[in-house]
Order: sequence, then structure tokens, then C-alpha cells
Amino acid sequence: MAHGHGHSHGYEPEHEHDDEHDELQHCIEECLNCHAVCTMTAQYCLTEGGEHADVNVIGVLLDCAELCQVSANFMLRGSPHHVVTCAACAELCRACEEACRSISGDERLVHCAEICAACAESCEKMASGSGLSDSGDVEED
Amino acid sequence: MAHGHGHSHGYEPEHEHDDEHDELQHCIEECLNCHAVCTMTAQYCLTEGGEHADVNVIGVLLDCAELCQVSANFMLRGSPHHVVTCAACAELCRACEEACRSISGDERLVHCAEICAACAESCEKMASGSGLSDSGDVEED
Amino acid sequence: MAHGHGHSHGYEPEHEHDDEHDELQHCIEECLNCHAVCTMTAQYCLTEGGEHADVNVIGVLLDCAELCQVSANFMLRGSPHHVVTCAACAELCRACEEACRSISGDERLVHCAEICAACAESCEKMASGSGLSDSGDVEED
Amino acid sequence: MAHGHGHSHGYEPEHEHDDEHDELQHCIEECLNCHAVCTMTAQYCLTEGGEHADVNVIGVLLDCAELCQVSANFMLRGSPHHVVTCAACAELCRACEEACRSISGDERLVHCAEICAACAESCEKMASGSGLSDSGDVEED
Repeated sequence: MAHGHGHSHGYEPEHEHDDEHDELQHCIEECLNCHAVCTMTAQYCLTEGGEHADVNVIGVLLDCAELCQVSANFMLRGSPHHVVTCAACAELCRACEEACRSISGDERLVHCAEICAACAESCEKMASGSGLSDSGDVEED
Repeated sequence: MAHGHGHSHGYEPEHEHDDEHDELQHCIEECLNCHAVCTMTAQYCLTEGGEHADVNVIGVLLDCAELCQVSANFMLRGSPHHVVTCAACAELCRACEEACRSISGDERLVHCAEICAACAESCEKMASGSGLSDSGDVEED
Repeated sequence: MAHGHGHSHGYEPEHEHDDEHDELQHCIEECLNCHAVCTMTAQYCLTEGGEHADVNVIGVLLDCAELCQVSANFMLRGSPHHVVTCAACAELCRACEEACRSISGDERLVHCAEICAACAESCEKMASGSGLSDSGDVEED
Repeated sequence: MAHGHGHSHGYEPEHEHDDEHDELQHCIEECLNCHAVCTMTAQYCLTEGGEHADVNVIGVLLDCAELCQVSANFMLRGSPHHVVTCAACAELCRACEEACRSISGDERLVHCAEICAACAESCEKMASGSGLSDSGDVEED
């Protein structure tokens, strides 16, 4: 993966390679990883059945997976509105982490919870520190 | 389309058919429609070229289309977290409306702006009035 | 919804309004409808539990919903490659119809099966009759 | 990423780690990578303008990115129907590779073409050799 992220001036890519870029790159990877793990965990939970297949557990896994994918896509497109999707994604990752931790004694759910927590942390950083206002307006720079 | 939206008590569907349900149903339709119109408008702008194909215009059309789809999906799944995605979707719809209005003299862009505005209004209602807190936590009921 | 479907000459939209266009428009609507119904049915099945929540039933509902969305998106973009996605979508709709019919005595599953069958039929028409070869190459006109 | 892929007997995961699993894992990675590269390349082409922003080039990049994502999702869910999506994905990757090669003298497009070619090859293997018939029926094993 590479550049193409015009995160500070709209969709126009900045080709510099700096700390801000590294954080964006890291967040894309966390989101793609969290999407994959939540998708596989939902399938695992369906196969296990019982409390694992509770509609609230499967539901939040599907929600989190879908929003992680979108959050990654906004960053891959270099969208200035990634702050909006990163903020939303962080909320879903926290909710998903909580749901995974609510079922005890399953190391796959513990793993999923950890991945969600890491993605939430990265998305929270992107949502707060990107130089874009909450409204998605481009920064004054 | 029908029920399946347990928007007030988690993912469990409530089969009552009431005002709250109608508003949810209306918002799903607005989001699906806005997704379709933004997707077609992006294609139209690419074909037109010139200022229509500006990366900021195409970019926000793609962003808005994608988030409308996700917002509809959360509501179709009856997710209690639809407040998070509706709030984010409303922001993108407003940004997309603004971008469409920035190019004058094109009735297709005017149409797209109007669809975005209607979707934003509906999503804003869902985000604020659904009985779920902003954090996505389920209401105390 | 409107035009924007350059189905006979690549992505360039043809503004004529003819039979071929009507069929495309109809197929988009079938796909969007099938996506919505399968998404809600998956949620319903999770809530019901038991044989409804079997991983093979939920799995094919999620698969079908996702591919219907993509098939609609290709057509909304006026992509000449919609023949590829319509063909794939038809297969998933048939598989989903079969899964829904495998559980007897549930009118919501019967409804979902009927929607899937209608979408499959429409997608099969688009896949075979659109004037594009199977390889997705643009027709010689 | 890990297991959860019941690719030979429906959606039920097989926990063995064998050659078939490695190939599936490899194909997921190729699809996720191709999705990311095509998404960034579409943005890059929009920013470059001119022949890069031709609707046929951007269009096939968006198509390919979307189908790669879906193809990865089917495999992540362990869906027996991944043969259908892998076959479709391979076709789009070949079309996208061709479009990228049609614009000469741009190393980013050469890179994208190479990623598409690698993804096509991997998807073709999954589509033909997975032990699932074209209809998506589960193998007799």
C-alpha cells in the first residue's frame, strides 16, 4: 500500500512521507485487520451456536466489520471526511469489544476484543488529531 | 420491505408498526435512494469531465454513496448502533449537497443536492430522536 | 432513479429510454430489493434461533445480500461488466432461494425465497441478453 | 488472520491447516491488497486528470476494487460460494489490468496492473480447484 492520502487538503494526495502519513497508514491496516477478524469471528460464532450466536453478538460483529471496511475505504481514497468515519468506527469497535468480552472463556473472542480495542484506539487518534473539524470541513491549515 | 428493526431494544425486532417504525422505514428508503443517485451522479460527472470530474466532487459523491449504503444496512439489520451511522451519514450528505451546489447550471447536480438534503434531514432525525444515546449505548427504556 | 447506464458502449451513458434500459432499471430494483429482504431475513433468522440460525442459512443470506448490492452498484455505475456480476448474483439468489425453502412453515422465508427467485430471473436476463460477451468485453455493436 | 474457512463442506470451519487452506489464505490477502491498490489508484487517476480520469479507467478500477472486497469477504466467511465470486473477481482483475496497461508511462498504473494480474491468477485457482462445482453446490468429497 502507498500514498494517495490527501488528508490535510481534501482529496488531493500529498506525497510527503511523515508521521501523520504513518498514522494514517497504520489506521488503514488496523481497520482492514479488524474487518477481517470480525467477519471471521461472526462466522465462528454462528458455527458455535448457543450464546455465541446471540443476535446481539452476531449483530455487532457484522456492524463493526462493515464500518471498519468503510473507514479503511475513506482513508484509502484520501477523503477529508475520514474523520467522520473514523469516529463512528471507533464507537462500533468499542461496542464490539464489549460484546466479545461478555462471553467468557473463549480465546477467539478475547482475540477479537483485542483487535477491536487496537482499531478503536487508532481510529480515535485519527478522528481527533487529523486537523479536520468534526463537521468534516477542511482545516484552515 | 418490512419490520425486523429492533431499534429500541438492541437487535431483537419489535413487530409493532408505529410512528417510530415509519420514520425508520422512511430513512432506509432515503438512504437507499441517495446511495443510488450519488453512485449514478459520480458516473455522470466522470463522463462529463472538466469541473464535474474534479477529485473533490467525485470523492465526496463516492463517500456519500458508500455511507448511505452502510447507514441503510445498519437500519435493515435493526442495529441499535444505527444512530452512529445515521449521524455520520447526515454529515456526508451535507458535504455532498454542498459539493453538488458548487457547480452551477446542471440540473442533475441540483437533483442530487436535493436528494442529499432530504437524506441528511431524515438521518439527522434518526440520529437524535431514536432513544439511543450518542455513544450508541442502548437506552435505559 | 435515472439513466447513467452506458451498458452498450462501456461506461458512457446512453440517454435513450428503451426496452433495454427498462430491463436494466428493473434489474437494479430487484437487486436492491433482494439485498434489503435478505439482510432483514438474516436478522430475523438470528432472532428466531434454532434451525433458522444455522450457519448455512445465515451464511447464504449474507452472501446473497452482499452480491445483490454489488450487482446493483455495477448497474448504477453503468458498468459494461455488470454481466459478470449479474451472472454471479443469479447463482447466489438461486442458492439462497433453496436455503429459504429448506425450512418449512415460515412465511417470511417463503417471501424471501420468492424475492430471490425474482431477482435471479432478472439477473439471468441481464447476464445473457445484454450484448456483452461473457468475458465482459464491450460488444462489437 | 486465521481459520474459519469451511471451504470444503459449506460454512462449517475446518480447523486443519493444509495446502488448500494456505491457498485460500493467500487469495484473501491478494484480494484485500488488490482492493486497496485499485481504490488508491482510482483516487490517483482522478487527481491526475486527462486520460487517467477517463470514465472507463476509473470505472473499471471502482468495479475491480468492489469485487475484490466481496471476494475476500466470501472467503473470510468460509462461504462455499466463494468459487462464484472468485471467478467473477478474476474477470474484473483481468479487465482492470488491461485498462491500467492501456495508459503508458506511468509506474503507478504498471504497479496496479501487476497487483491485478496476481490477484486474477490466485482467484482463478480458487475458482477452478476448490472442489466446489460451478453451481456453488458443496462437493461430494
